[in-house]
Amino acid sequence: MIVGLLGGGVIGAGWAARFALNGHDVRLYDPDPDAERKVGEVVANARRAMRKLVMPALPAEGSISVVGSPDDAAHGSRFIQESAPERLDVKRELLQRASRAAPAEVVIASSTSGLLPTSLQDGMSHPERFVVGHPFNPVYLLPLVEVCGGARTAPATVAAAADLYRGVGMQPLVLGKEIDGFVADRLLEALWREALWLVNDGVATAEEIDDAIRFGAGLRWSFMGTFLTYRIAGGEAGMRHFMEQFGPALKWPWTKLTDVPDLTDALLDRLVAQSDQQAGGRSIRALEVMRDDCLVAVMQGLRSAAPGGVAAGAVLDRYERQLFGATPAPPVDLDAPAPVVAHEVRVPAEWTDYNGHLNDSRYLRIASEACDRFLRLIGVDAQYLADGHSYYTAECHLAYAAAARGGDVVRATAQLLHHDPKRIHLFIALWRGGDQLATAELMLLHVDTAESRACAADPTVLSTLERLAAAHSALPTPRQAGRSVGQPKSI
Amino acid sequence: MIVGLLGGGVIGAGWAARFALNGHDVRLYDPDPDAERKVGEVVANARRAMRKLVMPALPAEGSISVVGSPDDAAHGSRFIQESAPERLDVKRELLQRASRAAPAEVVIASSTSGLLPTSLQDGMSHPERFVVGHPFNPVYLLPLVEVCGGARTAPATVAAAADLYRGVGMQPLVLGKEIDGFVADRLLEALWREALWLVNDGVATAEEIDDAIRFGAGLRWSFMGTFLTYRIAGGEAGMRHFMEQFGPALKWPWTKLTDVPDLTDALLDRLVAQSDQQAGGRSIRALEVMRDDCLVAVMQGLRSAAPGGVAAGAVLDRYERQLFGATPAPPVDLDAPAPVVAHEVRVPAEWTDYNGHLNDSRYLRIASEACDRFLRLIGVDAQYLADGHSYYTAECHLAYAAAARGGDVVRATAQLLHHDPKRIHLFIALWRGGDQLATAELMLLHVDTAESRACAADPTVLSTLERLAAAHSALPTPRQAGRSVGQPKSI
Repeated sequence: MIVGLLGGGVIGAGWAARFALNGHDVRLYDPDPDAERKVGEVVANARRAMRKLVMPALPAEGSISVVGSPDDAAHGSRFIQESAPERLDVKRELLQRASRAAPAEVVIASSTSGLLPTSLQDGMSHPERFVVGHPFNPVYLLPLVEVCGGARTAPATVAAAADLYRGVGMQPLVLGKEIDGFVADRLLEALWREALWLVNDGVATAEEIDDAIRFGAGLRWSFMGTFLTYRIAGGEAGMRHFMEQFGPALKWPWTKLTDVPDLTDALLDRLVAQSDQQAGGRSIRALEVMRDDCLVAVMQGLRSAAPGGVAAGAVLDRYERQLFGATPAPPVDLDAPAPVVAHEVRVPAEWTDYNGHLNDSRYLRIASEACDRFLRLIGVDAQYLADGHSYYTAECHLAYAAAARGGDVVRATAQLLHHDPKRIHLFIALWRGGDQLATAELMLLHVDTAESRACAADPTVLSTLERLAAAHSALPTPRQAGRSVGQPKSI
Repeated sequence: MIVGLLGGGVIGAGWAARFALNGHDVRLYDPDPDAERKVGEVVANARRAMRKLVMPALPAEGSISVVGSPDDAAHGSRFIQESAPERLDVKRELLQRASRAAPAEVVIASSTSGLLPTSLQDGMSHPERFVVGHPFNPVYLLPLVEVCGGARTAPATVAAAADLYRGVGMQPLVLGKEIDGFVADRLLEALWREALWLVNDGVATAEEIDDAIRFGAGLRWSFMGTFLTYRIAGGEAGMRHFMEQFGPALKWPWTKLTDVPDLTDALLDRLVAQSDQQAGGRSIRALEVMRDDCLVAVMQGLRSAAPGGVAAGAVLDRYERQLFGATPAPPVDLDAPAPVVAHEVRVPAEWTDYNGHLNDSRYLRIASEACDRFLRLIGVDAQYLADGHSYYTAECHLAYAAAARGGDVVRATAQLLHHDPKRIHLFIALWRGGDQLATAELMLLHVDTAESRACAADPTVLSTLERLAAAHSALPTPRQAGRSVGQPKSI
């Protein structure tokens, strides 16, 4: 699909990255002559972070062309996203031009942080296909996008935009009512105004204020937000009790929110100096890498915190399943006289240590995943396990051949060396393209899991093993198999 | 050390858990006859979460006694923390009684969320040892504690409280100026007031408001706070540019912060109904487990995101080093005729899969850590690596004997089987008490890391290996060594 983007600043470039990394071709218009370079830098950041974030391979990357006019960006696009500066006149001009250039069925969205959709869609051709889709920086990592229609927006437009955003791994929050600042920015703005007062009044520095968030409530906000936090704080007595207990505090002089401090030169100087001190000489690029690595770690943590993930972790889990589904594994031919391809995986970048190497155990993790998939292939599935039988690994001989690095796509093949009713002697090789990275020779024991003792496998599993054994009987024994540690490799 | 606690609600019980799990004995006073049960439940939650959070073993757990009066709680305590309801009269009464019962050098802290220390210390005996130490729920996991003295507080009191909090894994934020609500709660309160308005005005539900945080800004807040976020958003042009660009938005009608909505019955009913819907029938206990698991995952993620960790991950990193330091490994005798104890580790609970098992590769990870420590023992340290030499694993034969589970303390021993200038043939066994869990027979190659080719090790490393070889020469060859996969074990 071609996506037209109007504006290539931090937000527009973030959209370019998210769409291109999800396989869409992007046509981007920005009057800045330096737009191509700036967008390229954001996309490079995004590529690095997204490869760390998701386990399955991303689709083949789409192209990004920087074009000379809004009409060029709209031309041929199936979806258009505007991310110009927050000025009503600038945005309206772009949206109107794009609406004249794009057929009526093309949805046109605006990234505005707070301008009202009813006001933005005014003067557009076919305003019913206009909707706000408000993302958050960095757009290529943060899942949230607020979706809000105006008075003339068709419900189908809202649904189509939400689907499209979900398709590129985001979490649309569809708002029923349009309001200046929508929901998220009203909350951010409230906190931000209070933070500016604290600096203005000399109560705390920028860094202290950030510390007051990131060592405390910020950790909770990353997966619960505010209402769920307070519900839990209320304990078994519930939300009503919490409100009764803490309601009175709302009347206390704890916030100074009516006004905003005047942005005098003195206040600006103070903010800038404190922000410089906090950054400690780190460049924006270094800060961005830190930010992206932390977002990846937090979202991956929230995915592993519970089955199916929690909050942004659940979005990631859904997105990965979608990516896996999009590139299905080729069917396996059990009768082919060749090792079966049991697994293919992209090495997560954070597996790489400071030497650029993977820890030894990571190779075994991949081999172990390949072994699990091999077992599913021969009929050891969820039901088989639930019925109280499984294969346990008794022994494993690993031989390392070459270093894998983060981002490598590793293919695992499995060769059946031998089997009997209770045992499988399996040989797994890990490959990067045609290079062998490591091999694992495994002895698996079939067990009754309740009693933890060896027993014969199910006849259907054994008959599948027979088929495989027949197919693999002509294969040579790999030179690493049947050896003890340190014994010279035959051949 | 004995710690006296006044109040055993959610916050007081959280303090009891944090102190007891860090090896301090707790004397807790609460007039609630059900206090002991309630505190016990919080401590059980905390024990589970803390064991997941940190890798090293926690110190032997302290005792928790529920006592009958504030004086009893103060008696013998070296530190006192008050966590009574947020009523000035109640807190003053408790603080004054404790100050009369405790010697002048005992620091007395209050968990108040927003009452002024100058006002709280009024009427205390030795008010100079009073300080506010304001924690966040759950106290046993969140690192932040705001430390704020009043007009009569001695600087040494502030320093002593900060040290003590740091000692139990927290991050003290020392405030220079007392202000109602301190820093963190002013920020939380600003966001919370705006959230209440959004519900009151029917713009969004409790769950939608939480979604607007947890899928977006909440993820950033968990490690950056607000100023650093905006600094990065400002790009290379910096904070001044950001303020110039977004300053005008501060004047827009994006917040409704002056007032708070009246907590009418209708608004309360709406809040309670929306909160119930959001909880979806999950009990507070289930929500607490979810919350704690997510906090553990987020903090562990932030620890792994960069060397030394970021934000709360850096606090965790420091805390673990401190815990490791508190129980130093026994010195290794290189001349003893026995395998050396190379490593001891508690198996992280999240390593256990839904079957209650560890993935095969986790055993190798422990063996691999033990191998690293063995190498440090023979002189392959950070400097040695920096000089361009290291040992790489060429082969590894694992034999599995028994299942390890989350929470197990696993000890790894290393026996030198053979070595030459370029190779080390090493045998690592993993033990839980006297039970062998697994063994790993390793072949390590000494390499020039720049050229990735084998070369002879440094003479000092080789002479240490000679010493070890002499000591280990009389040890029998382990029955799992020198075998190929599937070959019957000799003996």
